[in-house]
Amino acid sequence: MCLAAVVEPGHPAVAEAVAEYGAAQVWASLTRPGSELPLGLRARTVKPGELRERTRAERLRFVIPGDAEWPAPLSDLAGCEPVNQLSGEPLGLWLAGGGDLAELAAQSVAVVGSRASTPYGDTVAAELAAELSESGRSIFSGGAYGIDAAAHRGCLAGRTPTVAVMAGGLDQPYPTGHRPLFDRIAERGVVVSELAPGEHPTRVRFLARNRLIAALTPGTVLVEAAARSGARNTVTWANVLGRIVMAVPGPVTSATSVTPHLLIRESEAILVARASDVLELLSPLGRANPRPPSERRPTDELSADELRVFEAVPGRGSLGAGDLALKAGVALPTCLALLDQLADQGFLVQNVLGQWQLPPRGGQCVR
Amino acid sequence: MCLAAVVEPGHPAVAEAVAEYGAAQVWASLTRPGSELPLGLRARTVKPGELRERTRAERLRFVIPGDAEWPAPLSDLAGCEPVNQLSGEPLGLWLAGGGDLAELAAQSVAVVGSRASTPYGDTVAAELAAELSESGRSIFSGGAYGIDAAAHRGCLAGRTPTVAVMAGGLDQPYPTGHRPLFDRIAERGVVVSELAPGEHPTRVRFLARNRLIAALTPGTVLVEAAARSGARNTVTWANVLGRIVMAVPGPVTSATSVTPHLLIRESEAILVARASDVLELLSPLGRANPRPPSERRPTDELSADELRVFEAVPGRGSLGAGDLALKAGVALPTCLALLDQLADQGFLVQNVLGQWQLPPRGGQCVR
Repeated sequence: MCLAAVVEPGHPAVAEAVAEYGAAQVWASLTRPGSELPLGLRARTVKPGELRERTRAERLRFVIPGDAEWPAPLSDLAGCEPVNQLSGEPLGLWLAGGGDLAELAAQSVAVVGSRASTPYGDTVAAELAAELSESGRSIFSGGAYGIDAAAHRGCLAGRTPTVAVMAGGLDQPYPTGHRPLFDRIAERGVVVSELAPGEHPTRVRFLARNRLIAALTPGTVLVEAAARSGARNTVTWANVLGRIVMAVPGPVTSATSVTPHLLIRESEAILVARASDVLELLSPLGRANPRPPSERRPTDELSADELRVFEAVPGRGSLGAGDLALKAGVALPTCLALLDQLADQGFLVQNVLGQWQLPPRGGQCVR
Repeated sequence: MCLAAVVEPGHPAVAEAVAEYGAAQVWASLTRPGSELPLGLRARTVKPGELRERTRAERLRFVIPGDAEWPAPLSDLAGCEPVNQLSGEPLGLWLAGGGDLAELAAQSVAVVGSRASTPYGDTVAAELAAELSESGRSIFSGGAYGIDAAAHRGCLAGRTPTVAVMAGGLDQPYPTGHRPLFDRIAERGVVVSELAPGEHPTRVRFLARNRLIAALTPGTVLVEAAARSGARNTVTWANVLGRIVMAVPGPVTSATSVTPHLLIRESEAILVARASDVLELLSPLGRANPRPPSERRPTDELSADELRVFEAVPGRGSLGAGDLALKAGVALPTCLALLDQLADQGFLVQNVLGQWQLPPRGGQCVR
């Protein structure tokens, strides 16, 4: 816990040293008088008793790799390709809230995006999160204004807990305006940080936090992001970690859809337009039903000749085979054969006068 | 011309017979007394003199494969996989207008979509067409209400002629409300049909017409299409013919963006958000510049330590190296080295007091 409190998140050298010597040994060498602090350790000391007391006072728990609540997917960060020279599994995490992080992560999806979102993006993020929640997925996000907040709120309106991963100490809610939201999240979900109480978010810490959102979840959905959005970074992490990267399109006239469109175009993300698209991609069985049923139309199966005859039948009323043959431009014997085929398939019916017409509504009427 | 006047477009048996025996021989066998009309030939006769006279009176010209104005890409239709059991190169085409079809087709792109378009789709189609036109591409479309009309009009407002491919005879403008639009198109562009004067569009003829739009152009852009739109059929043809298939995304809340999103998701179409995306895909040189310059941000190249130090420099005013080392949490010697590196890259400058600050505006300022 003390080591985690003095180490900047995502520092590769520290993660390597801990992997080789263990956290206790690294901490001992750091606290030996005269020891030089390696690059990336904050030039300040930590008092173990005070830190433990503060963690307890804030009703936080501290979990480390191997603990029951430690999410196994985080180990993918060990040895993965660095982004912005950040990498490594966290040494530990401070947690607040009534949920179990490992359990929630196992059935999760990240929904992230721009702080400067549009009403369209907020609506889509909230509805997507709510539907994914109703399907049993917990929404992980960064607790920021805009898309993150819409995603958390959508999940709060659903049936699963939501998880916010922060870039500063959990006693320092950021943005402060979201303090009530974080309280609500903590009721059944978890608020997570790699940083000790008292620490403030910095630009680098946001980048390190993004790697946790990507690593904790099997897939990340980007809802809105302008050309130079920080949310882009979470997607980079998700790709590096081999997670499923998804993006929601929007109007091409909207600046906040530039990054989703670019990612889809460059095949760095898969287009998702609704919750079922996301669930299909996350399903270990893959894509069982590649197209919604509404895509199929019965006449797609008809030949050009069948279509021609079918087309000749009026929308209202009926016609005899001779008239239909003329109208469709096919010979009468052919027309009779085609009419029988169409009737067999339920496209047409013959009335009491022997004339042909569309079946009554409720039948396989396609026009 | 007579054979083309009695044959339904896209009839594979006729195209095969013409390929084997030549059009004159097929016509002779059809007009021999007692000859049975093969399936798909209309059960009516045509008087050669009358047809020629009508073509002339309507100021149409009739072109056949081998003519100078015959677009070479149409030959891709010979022997290609059938769609809805339609296939085959047209026997001939009736043309109206001052443009040269072969020349325009060589520098073209198809822009198609829903008749029941939204204001968003109309705007995007018109702007896309206008920009593509300014870049020298002629817009080919189907002359329908909605996206087709917006695309034609966008091109009319540009510098290239536009081409409308119809599903009925050119003396029977459809929709009739577009008669003025077709007149305008014909001034410098071409109005095209595979059907003889006097013929009306039918559902099958729309499908056959779609194959011409796809075949005449090196790429097709789908702007808006609901789940069961006819524009989907043009895209199927473009894929069968190995043309570049592109689709413009839109709000996921819009029913008319369902098909573009589905095509992009299923990798049947490439997402295009603007004219430059289309031009890049159509360019024979391929994608020279995979990302717009705005996507790159200078700090993407910085290491985490460099970022940390850069981040510590205030937006206004300046700080000494000692303060920056403390703020960034790095040792002073390291901080000095990093500051030098950042200055070398133009991210920071040292003022006359030896303190560090952001460069003046106009320099490489990235915050």
